[in-house]
Amino acid sequence: MIGTREATGPADLMDVRAANLALVLRHVRAHAPCSRADIATATGLNKATVSSLVTDLIDRRLLRESGLLGSRIGRPATMLTLEGRPYAAIGIEIAADHVNAVAVDFTGSRLLTWRRAAPGPDTPPGRTVAAVAALAARVVGKVTGQGRTVLGLTLGVPDGVMEGLAAQVNRSLHDPAFEVTVASAATLAALAEQRDGAGRADLVHLHGGIGVTAGIIADGRPLRGARGLAGAVGHLVVDPDGAECACGRRGCLDLDLGLPGLVRNVLGEGAAPADWGAAVERIVALAHTGDAAAVAALTAAGARLGVAVRTLADVLDPEVVLLGGVLHPLAPWLVPAATARLDGRPVVAPSTVEPNAVALGGAALALARLEAGELPQLS
Amino acid sequence: MIGTREATGPADLMDVRAANLALVLRHVRAHAPCSRADIATATGLNKATVSSLVTDLIDRRLLRESGLLGSRIGRPATMLTLEGRPYAAIGIEIAADHVNAVAVDFTGSRLLTWRRAAPGPDTPPGRTVAAVAALAARVVGKVTGQGRTVLGLTLGVPDGVMEGLAAQVNRSLHDPAFEVTVASAATLAALAEQRDGAGRADLVHLHGGIGVTAGIIADGRPLRGARGLAGAVGHLVVDPDGAECACGRRGCLDLDLGLPGLVRNVLGEGAAPADWGAAVERIVALAHTGDAAAVAALTAAGARLGVAVRTLADVLDPEVVLLGGVLHPLAPWLVPAATARLDGRPVVAPSTVEPNAVALGGAALALARLEAGELPQLS
Repeated sequence: MIGTREATGPADLMDVRAANLALVLRHVRAHAPCSRADIATATGLNKATVSSLVTDLIDRRLLRESGLLGSRIGRPATMLTLEGRPYAAIGIEIAADHVNAVAVDFTGSRLLTWRRAAPGPDTPPGRTVAAVAALAARVVGKVTGQGRTVLGLTLGVPDGVMEGLAAQVNRSLHDPAFEVTVASAATLAALAEQRDGAGRADLVHLHGGIGVTAGIIADGRPLRGARGLAGAVGHLVVDPDGAECACGRRGCLDLDLGLPGLVRNVLGEGAAPADWGAAVERIVALAHTGDAAAVAALTAAGARLGVAVRTLADVLDPEVVLLGGVLHPLAPWLVPAATARLDGRPVVAPSTVEPNAVALGGAALALARLEAGELPQLS
Repeated sequence: MIGTREATGPADLMDVRAANLALVLRHVRAHAPCSRADIATATGLNKATVSSLVTDLIDRRLLRESGLLGSRIGRPATMLTLEGRPYAAIGIEIAADHVNAVAVDFTGSRLLTWRRAAPGPDTPPGRTVAAVAALAARVVGKVTGQGRTVLGLTLGVPDGVMEGLAAQVNRSLHDPAFEVTVASAATLAALAEQRDGAGRADLVHLHGGIGVTAGIIADGRPLRGARGLAGAVGHLVVDPDGAECACGRRGCLDLDLGLPGLVRNVLGEGAAPADWGAAVERIVALAHTGDAAAVAALTAAGARLGVAVRTLADVLDPEVVLLGGVLHPLAPWLVPAATARLDGRPVVAPSTVEPNAVALGGAALALARLEAGELPQLS
């Protein structure tokens, strides 16, 4: 099926060069170590073109030669691999209970993973933004201190917006050369699933926090919607006889699967705790002891989650639905209960990229941009 | 947001040429009549390249010169427009109550619109397929008799598959040079909305027949899902206290908005009528007379439709949801009742491309393929 392509501009010779540089990069990422001849065979580009492209990518310090590999016939070939050292990409997750930063090099190797307790729920938003900006500055300082150039920094927030965040981070970084982006935590987590985790073209990452949001990859691309609000599944009705929600509906997903509802239903506590992370740990500990009431509450929550997954399956037909955020440590109880509500499809499973899915997705965004052809300038 | 691009092959010079030919075609479709200089300015291609591309497209009989237009400065320019005459694209819808064929030329002008009553519900599937194949052969004969080359033929069926259909149509056309494709009616209707109707990047076309299916355009592209089953919304729960459905759930959308349910609830008839089209006409006629029971039943159905639209809005965030198929003539009663269940978004409206949405979408598929760069060979 072919959609109508919009006119975006001419495909001129520079575009061809950038597209082919990106093509070589993607091939090496998937198949390293490999030779220039391997690349020519796999891509259909002629050998002279591949040699020129590889020289360019070595000059940009994105590829490096990794030694010789003998073959049964002919001369040993010089093998190529991604060059990790010169670059770094950074992702920072801002969640209810923590702030989580990762930096990766161009090969995807982890350079650092920092986790901080979030400022308490009574902290004014301005203070939270300032704390995140300070953390971002420390991460950037760390990787640039190692001699790396930062390709990009992405901030993942629960609903995709946080007033003034990108501006303040830019200021605290003194208007850096790289791009500072703010994106939905769920969408970033879904990108991380696609790149480093489940790796499928049609997947949903259900990200749990104060509310539940879905990061959707459809046909290999993030689904955003007309206003960027796709995946706002927190008010899907999963229990028609349930409590009334502030949105006016009854039995919304967030009431049962959002953090306040989980704490209320599993721990029997009414008020929001000062520390969401500790509350989740208490839920997990209680369920692990086999506490009947806790397990029953989680099983009920899982069944409600199954109703939401069934709806997502009807509309989107994903191959897999992955549980992340605070749903991730609860997956041992939620997954069987949710799966029981489905007819075998889709697969429901814990995310394989937690607890760093959002931050890794943020870092991956800068790498994906590069591999789509936005190469760093020659220095 | 940038997804990970898959390695698909090198962007070589032939690709550039094909991409630029398609770029010029799309520009002329959107802006005809226009001059070579207009195209150069708008696309960023240099004038010599544009002249060469235009000559190629005139040789392929996709563009033609349409006369001179004087401007205030300089010589009058030769204007270009799409050449409609040499080509045709065909779409055929196979619905519960009718078979509908359209052919359009390359400019999108309608060449023919044929509507036939469908073979009755007791007709063996093989007979239906044979009847469709015979109709396809007559349509192809008609347009080729006018000296046109057929670019493609698409068959739209309710659930995207009909055993042996493409093979039998191919046989009855003696294995033609063009492609015969079978696709989901709802997806084709959504393509027609995008091309000739509402024309948005994020839309849903809700196609009503025996059941309801959604054709989804997300970020300008049809959303298909892992198994091609995206948009199978007929079993979304819209009435939790409703009747049990064969699928095991309660109060599914199809129970109220599928043709059998509409006939039962509005006309008070239990059995499936021999002629679905006549039944829909009786529903519309009754509602137009202001019959209180009929209007109340349609209002109740519209409210249930609103519940499904709200779910689609949460997951997909479309700009607009358009009603097609048998929902289209019922839109005057369904739209207000559905809209009352929403918070202002998305817009719910009758399709503007009915009653030929599916067939037009089928024809559009071949045109879209051409405008994406799959040009007909020079003859």
